[in-house]
Amino acid sequence: MSSGEAVAGVVFDAYGTLLDVYAVEATADALFPGKGPAIARLWRDKQIAYSQLRTMSGQYALFWQITEDALDYACEFARVRLGPDAREKLLRQYRALPPHAEVRASLGTLKERNLKLAVLSNGDTVMLNEAIAAAGLSEFFDHILSVEPVRKFKTAPEAYQLGPDAFGCLATNLLFVSSNGWDIAGASWFGYKTFWINRAGAPRERLGASPAETGATMADLVRHLAP
Amino acid sequence: MSSGEAVAGVVFDAYGTLLDVYAVEATADALFPGKGPAIARLWRDKQIAYSQLRTMSGQYALFWQITEDALDYACEFARVRLGPDAREKLLRQYRALPPHAEVRASLGTLKERNLKLAVLSNGDTVMLNEAIAAAGLSEFFDHILSVEPVRKFKTAPEAYQLGPDAFGCLATNLLFVSSNGWDIAGASWFGYKTFWINRAGAPRERLGASPAETGATMADLVRHLAP
Repeated sequence: MSSGEAVAGVVFDAYGTLLDVYAVEATADALFPGKGPAIARLWRDKQIAYSQLRTMSGQYALFWQITEDALDYACEFARVRLGPDAREKLLRQYRALPPHAEVRASLGTLKERNLKLAVLSNGDTVMLNEAIAAAGLSEFFDHILSVEPVRKFKTAPEAYQLGPDAFGCLATNLLFVSSNGWDIAGASWFGYKTFWINRAGAPRERLGASPAETGATMADLVRHLAP
Repeated sequence: MSSGEAVAGVVFDAYGTLLDVYAVEATADALFPGKGPAIARLWRDKQIAYSQLRTMSGQYALFWQITEDALDYACEFARVRLGPDAREKLLRQYRALPPHAEVRASLGTLKERNLKLAVLSNGDTVMLNEAIAAAGLSEFFDHILSVEPVRKFKTAPEAYQLGPDAFGCLATNLLFVSSNGWDIAGASWFGYKTFWINRAGAPRERLGASPAETGATMADLVRHLAP
């Protein structure tokens, strides 16, 4: 992009990319000492796996329901008894996850450059709008796109098509940004330009998708998009 | 079934259900001391995840390629250098996985009862036939069904349809057997009767699929199907 290649807009994944899904770890650890990290990790992994299984099998359910289901699985796997109060506490926190530290400033900089910004998330419409508002990020986005209308989660092409539809351009003119390697592979296969915020320092995915640009945080994205 | 409900045939998943995918753990641990269990686990998890992502995105690749890709990812994640000899050794073992201890005797008993048996696997045709032969199981099966012709992995409905097509009956007249909870959910959604061999003692999946019969090994399946 700094090579002069303009984009019509930047499309962000929400969970993990803008919002810190592991913010629940400390709460889980206070409730179940020593098991917080494992529960938070499995909660997230299972949430993603369930969204993908339901998509492959044509069994869509709201992402919020999948989030609840994944929590129940994770707690049983970790052999802890999740009472109603603890469950409510963890789920309430998940509805209002904090943004990653650098997100607000980075989005502000991109907005000052007059870039068009969107969110494209597996979250259902209500859950997603609540989360973006709770994180104080609503003002930055021209479009907040939930997959709910197409009833398929990413990486289904119908989900990624929501970006080009909202911007009225081809995917090749949009930059898709995600911290999830699988999401970057899906978006690259679909045709977006991609930027992988590799927050965890994970290995690159072996999926044969065209290589994405990569950074460690949103600040690297801001540099990548510098005029 | 012991209630007198006959089935037209029994359809088995291969990897994990008949074949012990964690037989590679000891080899991996000898190559990379202390890291065998983590590598074997992530190799398998990533293999499944890649098959599902490629299916959702219409990016089919042979299961053998996916198996190689997943091994490369797992070793990089575990921060070990997988040289060509070690890679070849692990992959050669994966092509000839041993059956779980009780599998041969259990299949023999089912065959003696004149049940029609099939394998329905994500493995590509060559890989799958080699694996079933290497495990000494070929004689038991009326059909060895690879998803390769439909170029989608389970849980895509097109993959599960191979069972009814081979037997010439409805899925509701077939019993699908798998050790993988996600596979049981997919088969149940598709319409099979299902039997989950929960080898790992895992929690039930929260996927809203109709509950499967459950056992710990194939011996429980044999009892379940007793005339």
